[in-house]
Amino acid sequence: MAPRLIEGLATTEPLAEVFSDISVLQAMLDFEVSLARAEARAGIVPKSVPDRIAAAAHASEFDMDALTRGTFRAGTPGIPVVKALTEKVRATDPEAAGWVHWGATSQDVADTALVLLLKRTQSIITSDLKRLEKALVVLSEKHKNTVTLGRTLLQAAPPVTFGLKVAGWLGALRRGRRRLESAFDEALVLQFGGASGTLASLADKGGIVARGLAQELGLRCPEAPWHAHCDRLANLVCSGGVLTGSLGKMARDISLLMQSEVGEVAEPGGEGRGGSSAMPHKRNPIACALTLAAAERVPGLVASFLSAMVQEHERAVGGWQSEGPTIASIVQAMGSAAASMAEVADGLSVDTARMRQNLANTRGVNFAERVMMLLAAELGRDVAHKLLEDAIQKSVRQNKDLSTLLAELPEVSSRLDRSVLDQLAIPEQYLGSAEAFREALLNGTTSNRRER
Amino acid sequence: MAPRLIEGLATTEPLAEVFSDISVLQAMLDFEVSLARAEARAGIVPKSVPDRIAAAAHASEFDMDALTRGTFRAGTPGIPVVKALTEKVRATDPEAAGWVHWGATSQDVADTALVLLLKRTQSIITSDLKRLEKALVVLSEKHKNTVTLGRTLLQAAPPVTFGLKVAGWLGALRRGRRRLESAFDEALVLQFGGASGTLASLADKGGIVARGLAQELGLRCPEAPWHAHCDRLANLVCSGGVLTGSLGKMARDISLLMQSEVGEVAEPGGEGRGGSSAMPHKRNPIACALTLAAAERVPGLVASFLSAMVQEHERAVGGWQSEGPTIASIVQAMGSAAASMAEVADGLSVDTARMRQNLANTRGVNFAERVMMLLAAELGRDVAHKLLEDAIQKSVRQNKDLSTLLAELPEVSSRLDRSVLDQLAIPEQYLGSAEAFREALLNGTTSNRRER
Amino acid sequence: MAPRLIEGLATTEPLAEVFSDISVLQAMLDFEVSLARAEARAGIVPKSVPDRIAAAAHASEFDMDALTRGTFRAGTPGIPVVKALTEKVRATDPEAAGWVHWGATSQDVADTALVLLLKRTQSIITSDLKRLEKALVVLSEKHKNTVTLGRTLLQAAPPVTFGLKVAGWLGALRRGRRRLESAFDEALVLQFGGASGTLASLADKGGIVARGLAQELGLRCPEAPWHAHCDRLANLVCSGGVLTGSLGKMARDISLLMQSEVGEVAEPGGEGRGGSSAMPHKRNPIACALTLAAAERVPGLVASFLSAMVQEHERAVGGWQSEGPTIASIVQAMGSAAASMAEVADGLSVDTARMRQNLANTRGVNFAERVMMLLAAELGRDVAHKLLEDAIQKSVRQNKDLSTLLAELPEVSSRLDRSVLDQLAIPEQYLGSAEAFREALLNGTTSNRRER
Amino acid sequence: MAPRLIEGLATTEPLAEVFSDISVLQAMLDFEVSLARAEARAGIVPKSVPDRIAAAAHASEFDMDALTRGTFRAGTPGIPVVKALTEKVRATDPEAAGWVHWGATSQDVADTALVLLLKRTQSIITSDLKRLEKALVVLSEKHKNTVTLGRTLLQAAPPVTFGLKVAGWLGALRRGRRRLESAFDEALVLQFGGASGTLASLADKGGIVARGLAQELGLRCPEAPWHAHCDRLANLVCSGGVLTGSLGKMARDISLLMQSEVGEVAEPGGEGRGGSSAMPHKRNPIACALTLAAAERVPGLVASFLSAMVQEHERAVGGWQSEGPTIASIVQAMGSAAASMAEVADGLSVDTARMRQNLANTRGVNFAERVMMLLAAELGRDVAHKLLEDAIQKSVRQNKDLSTLLAELPEVSSRLDRSVLDQLAIPEQYLGSAEAFREALLNGTTSNRRER
Repeated sequence: MAPRLIEGLATTEPLAEVFSDISVLQAMLDFEVSLARAEARAGIVPKSVPDRIAAAAHASEFDMDALTRGTFRAGTPGIPVVKALTEKVRATDPEAAGWVHWGATSQDVADTALVLLLKRTQSIITSDLKRLEKALVVLSEKHKNTVTLGRTLLQAAPPVTFGLKVAGWLGALRRGRRRLESAFDEALVLQFGGASGTLASLADKGGIVARGLAQELGLRCPEAPWHAHCDRLANLVCSGGVLTGSLGKMARDISLLMQSEVGEVAEPGGEGRGGSSAMPHKRNPIACALTLAAAERVPGLVASFLSAMVQEHERAVGGWQSEGPTIASIVQAMGSAAASMAEVADGLSVDTARMRQNLANTRGVNFAERVMMLLAAELGRDVAHKLLEDAIQKSVRQNKDLSTLLAELPEVSSRLDRSVLDQLAIPEQYLGSAEAFREALLNGTTSNRRER
Repeated sequence: MAPRLIEGLATTEPLAEVFSDISVLQAMLDFEVSLARAEARAGIVPKSVPDRIAAAAHASEFDMDALTRGTFRAGTPGIPVVKALTEKVRATDPEAAGWVHWGATSQDVADTALVLLLKRTQSIITSDLKRLEKALVVLSEKHKNTVTLGRTLLQAAPPVTFGLKVAGWLGALRRGRRRLESAFDEALVLQFGGASGTLASLADKGGIVARGLAQELGLRCPEAPWHAHCDRLANLVCSGGVLTGSLGKMARDISLLMQSEVGEVAEPGGEGRGGSSAMPHKRNPIACALTLAAAERVPGLVASFLSAMVQEHERAVGGWQSEGPTIASIVQAMGSAAASMAEVADGLSVDTARMRQNLANTRGVNFAERVMMLLAAELGRDVAHKLLEDAIQKSVRQNKDLSTLLAELPEVSSRLDRSVLDQLAIPEQYLGSAEAFREALLNGTTSNRRER
Repeated sequence: MAPRLIEGLATTEPLAEVFSDISVLQAMLDFEVSLARAEARAGIVPKSVPDRIAAAAHASEFDMDALTRGTFRAGTPGIPVVKALTEKVRATDPEAAGWVHWGATSQDVADTALVLLLKRTQSIITSDLKRLEKALVVLSEKHKNTVTLGRTLLQAAPPVTFGLKVAGWLGALRRGRRRLESAFDEALVLQFGGASGTLASLADKGGIVARGLAQELGLRCPEAPWHAHCDRLANLVCSGGVLTGSLGKMARDISLLMQSEVGEVAEPGGEGRGGSSAMPHKRNPIACALTLAAAERVPGLVASFLSAMVQEHERAVGGWQSEGPTIASIVQAMGSAAASMAEVADGLSVDTARMRQNLANTRGVNFAERVMMLLAAELGRDVAHKLLEDAIQKSVRQNKDLSTLLAELPEVSSRLDRSVLDQLAIPEQYLGSAEAFREALLNGTTSNRRER
Repeated sequence: MAPRLIEGLATTEPLAEVFSDISVLQAMLDFEVSLARAEARAGIVPKSVPDRIAAAAHASEFDMDALTRGTFRAGTPGIPVVKALTEKVRATDPEAAGWVHWGATSQDVADTALVLLLKRTQSIITSDLKRLEKALVVLSEKHKNTVTLGRTLLQAAPPVTFGLKVAGWLGALRRGRRRLESAFDEALVLQFGGASGTLASLADKGGIVARGLAQELGLRCPEAPWHAHCDRLANLVCSGGVLTGSLGKMARDISLLMQSEVGEVAEPGGEGRGGSSAMPHKRNPIACALTLAAAERVPGLVASFLSAMVQEHERAVGGWQSEGPTIASIVQAMGSAAASMAEVADGLSVDTARMRQNLANTRGVNFAERVMMLLAAELGRDVAHKLLEDAIQKSVRQNKDLSTLLAELPEVSSRLDRSVLDQLAIPEQYLGSAEAFREALLNGTTSNRRER
């Protein structure tokens, strides 16, 4: 049982609601009602039965503690829930009670209920992701000319634009959202196979009932029951893993840019967020922290799910039983990361002056590549590389601009005009294809469609 | 938020209680009360304050939904809980309210509360493990002479005793329990460091308060706060991972021995366990399934925890926030596996006749090693190996005992007496050091102590 | 450094060749040659340079030990390889040496070389997977009427056909192969961004050079460099994880069916495979073992890769450096599993008589669901369930067929004809939609296309 | 097969040597020679045999490619190696050939060889770790009075000393090294059980031979063979996981302190380390990157190993075969991290002036906790918290010191003397128990011993 005060860091309110006890139970009851409806239409179950079952299928009227204890013992919620539902139906209609769960097995109701819950999470998460993408497009456009320090291995590198940086996040997140939607589409299928996956107890009516049931529930009907083959769920889980990784990358970048010593951006903060009980001055990167927490947890959870794919014969001993808690954790963690980053993107403060100041503070050494390319053409690459290493060390030691130091070297001044040197550290002159790349990332719709 | 109907497969009732909302909150409140007591004793906080805080520190009187929502926003339960407690204290004593959480930071209360909860799980889990070990000792003694098929790569191999097999489980589980206890002992330490881990706001009284607080809470006081160093918890988590693996090995063996085609042992079943909603004949290995489910999930969870160890400076952005849900899942999964296997060991049915029958069914081919060793001394190993491969293939094809077929071969009959051949497949004669190993494993106390 | 005697269990010869030292180095050298060609065409590098570089770019002529030592120190193979290539070029043409690696950075050559190697593995693995699918289609068709025991939680369940079981493997593996191919297609893109990912040193010619370089190498050119965004590789790695899980499921099923006590199928064995040094009688499931070994290892490796996605700014400190060994291990493990299962599917022996015998051995108790559905309609479900549980316990105790025992019960004999009871355990009469599902899985092409 | 140019990032030269092909093979051959010696002493094998086997047991004389191919097929290196050794012995002494590998099985030689290799890595890694600890003690002592910014969630927090920060690393690493040594001690045991783990083919001499063999190899002899119980190795692997996490934490801290914008410390660099092919100015944190790469990879590898613990009966199908590559990767990754951090600790440059400057740059806002505690006693905590939040926002906006702004507020100036306010931001006055904690961590020997 995961306490909300601990799990609160790993989900959002709407997702927590989807995975609440009452919601899980209702999804299971919905399966049973829809099954009776589909079987009544197929002429298997008497016409009056579905309504009797529906009348008893209100989650709020069940004893959740008893069901939980039953689940501990049975190894699946399917058995105690079906039993409790049958009792409730029997109270009003003993005959109808005999038709509850007709032809189905516990895995059918447990797995299909899970799929129904996942379907509800899809719209929540996708909506946050689209909000995030939209905010990133705006941010990238706004900062297409904002120069900022490139940073490789956390060291100063030639400049980029903040718009390009944002577009990089956008590209990865959009690719990730598309993979996720495609994985949801593939995974949202009915599970209905009966004891061994042949629907033997429905004789030749298995197909009709399955299609009817899928229709009732708003799910696709797969070619065959998938009981011991959970590759579609695994693929969904993996898409979540990849997406969470990209959200984590964005969160790490932002938390690094928010460092006191860097100070280039800030999370929006807002109601209850970002404070510290001990330190009134703090503007903590809480949304980033929650996203990074998800990015720490999800990879291991993905591994747990993939491990559990090796399932025995027609129903697994262990692998199947392990899926539910793992997938619930992954989906909520991913959703928490998506919601957090959407909030951040919507309200990010950007300090363009600090960005330019941080660039200037490097004293031009991050343009060393640029000088080297110029000098290499004149002196050869190795000589140029050595000469620059020396000049840079001097620049750091003497706290002087690199261009000033280079101008004092005869090897350089005889080959490069002072005016050239003076312009070396103008970031706008050394952005290469930054804007072309940024535009291509924003227009990625087309090229991505080509990709896939 | 993990629904109980799903998480029910991944915990036990007593552990679910430890990690319930109310229990987590109470642990946090206990920290705050104890802190005030320690600070009052150190002369920092007025004498009257602790009782005022204690009076307000009843978990059942808090608005859990509001605290959950606050946790979503704050990125730690510490902030909303301290705030809510302060309000409650202020209602009766505004001055005392100012002393709530004095000198502490959110991580202090959140991490120490987690340690307090872990302490409660230790006795629950250890007790199940000791019950399990005791049952295995009895089982091993009882079956010290019960011969059964050895199986390597799931193929018939020379015989072992069931007592040895059980002793093998015992050995691993006892080593695992000892490592776990030692890891619990190391991990159950106070976290108390204030904003940056120096307890600066307590000036020179940090040490006194820390020791007093630890004493109040029944925890050891470490050399220093460990905020961003969670190696002790990681070690605990890992011990749980190793132990769960050994429990999983036992569960896999038992579930394999319970196969319809093998039928050598059976889980006890019992109230609500082992049935199937579709198949009235089933005696399902539910306790094994829950244990194997834990063994599928825990390794990935351990990875999540280890990943999160790379924590920034004095408090992490992401790594720290990810710990709670992961460790709660691991401890409960391990505990569920321990309780399940204790139940199994206590009530395992063993069908010794079926064991002997399964041995006999191999028609002696699993004694091929034995014959080969005898013949190798006469014919050379390669010749013997080839001769045996041929005879075994014939044995399988013709459904005849290997010894009968060998007796028909002149190369064999000229070298080995018929009486020798007749005794080849008597399992009791080919057990080597089985009993010596079994005894050594049971007496492992001594040798294990030497080991560590 | 992974020793071949250990890694031999985790790869195949063709894949080991792709990831051999010489092959990795040549891929890096190919990048440098192609870069010079693209830059010469763009008018950046003198026309004569590419051939000079190409003449020096023969992997077999490099000092691999020195390069390895250089890699240890530099934290990327890019730096020592570029340096060594430059030296080789300088020996014949000092001016050309200055143009080696022009405008590129170490990550460009290291990552693109990795992509080139992955491209080579794609055709190897896909070819094994297609061979596997083809063999499974044949096997499924051949056994569409072969009845065999269904098994849930490793217990006897109503019958299935072996053809359906095989079709289930096929369905998951075909879905997995399609996802993998799509992931390969997405991932096989050039990485080329220079120091900060803007190709600043190529001024406005970045785009032209990138497209030319991609064309030279037979890769697609992405919208922008992806240095710190490895979601495409992560997606590939995940597809490999899912596929390996499905291969593992097939291998687990087969290894269970090969158990001495089950004996329904056997791996083909063949040259050097399946033996034991101690036991001449063994026909070990070695291909299954290698596949299951891959399925044990890959989930954790996928987690390692996903963890590493959280990369800092324009080039990561740690995450990037960790990718190579992980992805090389995953691809080889997946390929080893694919090749193993293709070999198994091609040569699997199936003992249909043993399958029928194992079915008969259950004494009809696995048809309990069937009887219950019949009796439930007459007696109500609960009464029927109880009555059957009792009869089954008697069947097991007395070793009698369930139908015989049921015929002796007045509640049953008064409601079900003896002739009905006699036919209850005829597996062919209780297959439900097995054949319809099997056919749908085999024809999955269409419905799967709809799916995606 | 892992290419050295890729794996070069994940090992060190000495560890790569231990896990080289030749070294693995020699360890296997050593097992066979020692086995013959122990069996000769026990009177099982003729006296002359061991020397004959020893004469043939030179790894360099074997055809490694053939052995690798054999391993691909056999699913264990044991079978092809024993076969090749037997052939070599037969060439000089056909009778002795018959005694090669007498009574042993493939797992015995493969697992014991692995243990022998691990033993060699223990001294390498432990030595690096002790060098690291020694350097950290010196560093901590040197900087016990060096004040530096505390940083929580990457935001400025009250000051710490750099000496305390270093002592925190030391504490975790020393605890980690002790756990690792203890885990090595436990894991370095002989595996020797024969076909089924009973040593049946040695009749009643199993124990004598086992003890003799262990003695020959310098290993401890366990109570019983552990073939399918790999908890001791799992515990070793986990200890490596925890230690690598602590090394990663140190590496992350240092890489963050090395950021251009922070600039408080620098890696030593040195031969071939820290450069960039594109950027001559770079002083990259390469040792940190390699360590962080290990910390990204190891958690997933640990999960792979733990997953594989669920091993079937007397020898696993899959789990066992997966262990070798995983453990080899973990040990080398951990060793690479240990060596890297030892190098860093030995040569770390510390810029104490920059540390003080970065502290001053916060304009005192990181002392907000301090002011709040003072004001809270006067105004109540809530009023004080609000007042400070406003003052801090003004401080950031107006770029003024917090104390100056506070002095302008009547609520403050009427309660706190200007002299008190002036001293608020003197870091030396707000270090609390920093030095006491630092000393306790350095003297951790005692308290840790008590701990365990």
